[in-house]
Amino acid sequence: MEVTVNRKAHFNAAHRLYRKDWSAEKNDAIFGKCNNPNFHGHNYELIVSVTGEIDKNTGFVVDMKVLKKLIKIEIEDALDHKNLNLEVPEFKELNPTAENIAVVIYNKLKPKLNAKLALEITLYETPRNFVKYSGK
Amino acid sequence: MEVTVNRKAHFNAAHRLYRKDWSAEKNDAIFGKCNNPNFHGHNYELIVSVTGEIDKNTGFVVDMKVLKKLIKIEIEDALDHKNLNLEVPEFKELNPTAENIAVVIYNKLKPKLNAKLALEITLYETPRNFVKYSGK
Amino acid sequence: MEVTVNRKAHFNAAHRLYRKDWSAEKNDAIFGKCNNPNFHGHNYELIVSVTGEIDKNTGFVVDMKVLKKLIKIEIEDALDHKNLNLEVPEFKELNPTAENIAVVIYNKLKPKLNAKLALEITLYETPRNFVKYSGK
Amino acid sequence: MEVTVNRKAHFNAAHRLYRKDWSAEKNDAIFGKCNNPNFHGHNYELIVSVTGEIDKNTGFVVDMKVLKKLIKIEIEDALDHKNLNLEVPEFKELNPTAENIAVVIYNKLKPKLNAKLALEITLYETPRNFVKYSGK
Amino acid sequence: MEVTVNRKAHFNAAHRLYRKDWSAEKNDAIFGKCNNPNFHGHNYELIVSVTGEIDKNTGFVVDMKVLKKLIKIEIEDALDHKNLNLEVPEFKELNPTAENIAVVIYNKLKPKLNAKLALEITLYETPRNFVKYSGK
Amino acid sequence: MEVTVNRKAHFNAAHRLYRKDWSAEKNDAIFGKCNNPNFHGHNYELIVSVTGEIDKNTGFVVDMKVLKKLIKIEIEDALDHKNLNLEVPEFKELNPTAENIAVVIYNKLKPKLNAKLALEITLYETPRNFVKYSGK
Repeated sequence: MEVTVNRKAHFNAAHRLYRKDWSAEKNDAIFGKCNNPNFHGHNYELIVSVTGEIDKNTGFVVDMKVLKKLIKIEIEDALDHKNLNLEVPEFKELNPTAENIAVVIYNKLKPKLNAKLALEITLYETPRNFVKYSGK
Repeated sequence: MEVTVNRKAHFNAAHRLYRKDWSAEKNDAIFGKCNNPNFHGHNYELIVSVTGEIDKNTGFVVDMKVLKKLIKIEIEDALDHKNLNLEVPEFKELNPTAENIAVVIYNKLKPKLNAKLALEITLYETPRNFVKYSGK
Repeated sequence: MEVTVNRKAHFNAAHRLYRKDWSAEKNDAIFGKCNNPNFHGHNYELIVSVTGEIDKNTGFVVDMKVLKKLIKIEIEDALDHKNLNLEVPEFKELNPTAENIAVVIYNKLKPKLNAKLALEITLYETPRNFVKYSGK
Repeated sequence: MEVTVNRKAHFNAAHRLYRKDWSAEKNDAIFGKCNNPNFHGHNYELIVSVTGEIDKNTGFVVDMKVLKKLIKIEIEDALDHKNLNLEVPEFKELNPTAENIAVVIYNKLKPKLNAKLALEITLYETPRNFVKYSGK
Repeated sequence: MEVTVNRKAHFNAAHRLYRKDWSAEKNDAIFGKCNNPNFHGHNYELIVSVTGEIDKNTGFVVDMKVLKKLIKIEIEDALDHKNLNLEVPEFKELNPTAENIAVVIYNKLKPKLNAKLALEITLYETPRNFVKYSGK
Repeated sequence: MEVTVNRKAHFNAAHRLYRKDWSAEKNDAIFGKCNNPNFHGHNYELIVSVTGEIDKNTGFVVDMKVLKKLIKIEIEDALDHKNLNLEVPEFKELNPTAENIAVVIYNKLKPKLNAKLALEITLYETPRNFVKYSGK
């Protein structure tokens, strides 16, 4: 019996959408006010979804306490109250769009989970905009 | 890397569930108080979900500003503060159930999106009832 | 010890904002698309707040089961799936704005409660617009 | 046209996570404070999702009134204000983790639905932890 | 300038509403299924609201980090994953209704705060039922 | 009859909590990770609450369309996608804590409203932290 368990977490961060190799005009045309050179920010709300067989012994797919701690160490400690562009190595050359942040979170968590477990990341950039990525 | 981006929107509308070709008794039996001939209404909360590859240049699957404007023009302007039965051509002969409204919204948005993008519509008729349609 | 107990409820209804004694032009100027003669509608989410002393015997300010039933009979049965303008007597001559609906709900519930209890009505017309009335 | 309709419901219950055949030490090591022998509890929020073809006659996948009543009889009446370990037969020998509760709910509802309909259960144990099961 | 700062927290607990000095019949008549002798439970969502002058030096009414830790130590550690009737001394002789739990939380936190600060407790027993207490 | 009408709005911004006249050590001790010199950010969710008499002619306390536009011009255009410390004049010498931002929003809106209307600002810095200010 395959079940998906989901855990919510959150982090607050500043970011700016732009490409160093584009002109200011092109950055403005594509990214609009998200290209503010002084940064803006979000409360990112995160749902980590892990799919796998229920362990007959425990009744768990994964131990939520373990998953919660993993998200704390790998994601919240790395991203919370940070400037994504300036302080998070993954975004040195990668534009921190919600799409790319979801991929980065997936790539940080996937190798830490049992390889039999499937992973999906849902990331709310605002209560009205959110993205999903599941490694496909 | 395939990501789903989701944008929330909303519209308020009046509707009535019934079929012209059924008797009042049959309409009441099937649709209950939703068959009130004087109409009732809802705050429809909409999630438009678009799945596709992340554009390497922008880091976007779709530009949210463009998607937001498309939803405004195609859906909100067409349905907001309307009587679905009397004023929305798609429901002239189609019962405006949540299921059918989701299909109509899908059919209005799909041709406006790049053909490579998959679309899913989530429509909340109330905070307790909602439907999903993805063109299958 | 004075405590406020709050109970959520909801009803869906159609309405139209306008005054019979105003011209169509004036109604449009003041009420905009809310003046659609074919009606539009909302999911009204209601919070009924009752303030009073905790009963030493029960530990209750009011019995929630009793309050829930009262809201069902007085408010949900009267307003749910109704056209407020055409079917609810209180709005025969009263414009069904959120403000006025809250006052009507207050006036319907207040006489049914123990006179020692204070009442406040919170009414969400949409998740983004809501009103409060407490009989002052 | 295949649509998923979703209905929210809820029940409150006490439970304890443990295995009779394990020592107190092992139960504590695996289940932590969830192994409190005096029980703790949750407001379980449930989403029942049913997927199928839209009926051309009604515009419904399933009649929400029927689905609502089914959830009331099969799930809410069986689980609400209960001690899952002591009073619900399905958990006599089964640890009432969120995962296992979702499977039990699925197994109770599936045979009551038209066999052509697919079913998915989403169960929130807290606003921050939830699981999904769809019979796979 | 007087501002209210609000911090959300939560705990899960089992409880039972009843009075030892009443007959089983009377307890059932008043407390219904909340009188289940095997207990039931809730996810209690808590809002702690503290009102006072903004400190000119910090721009804070209270330091949220300090308030968060205080709630953790005084409330979450005392009530989370507990059986309120059996394990929490304040409810040895006091019926753990939402009203009484809010009063107990107020009485635990008030002496730990600067005496100039006003305190209000909002406690959600379920997403649909909640109470407020401010020491009056 | 006095009613409070409430309108939700939102803006995203970057900020940093610190005082220029304090040492880095003191800023760190008081503001912790909120003192990150590279900034972090939030989705600020705003509720503007206006209390006054219901206008007998319209049934409104204030016209929500007018209030919505006022919030757009005075608050969203001024604060959305901005760095509060660097780009918003009110925070040149004022620490942009949630408390101070609420006061600034109050002071921007109050003079634009009819003097008979009372105003309260509720500002969510995160879904778990929020403040209220009503000019007292």
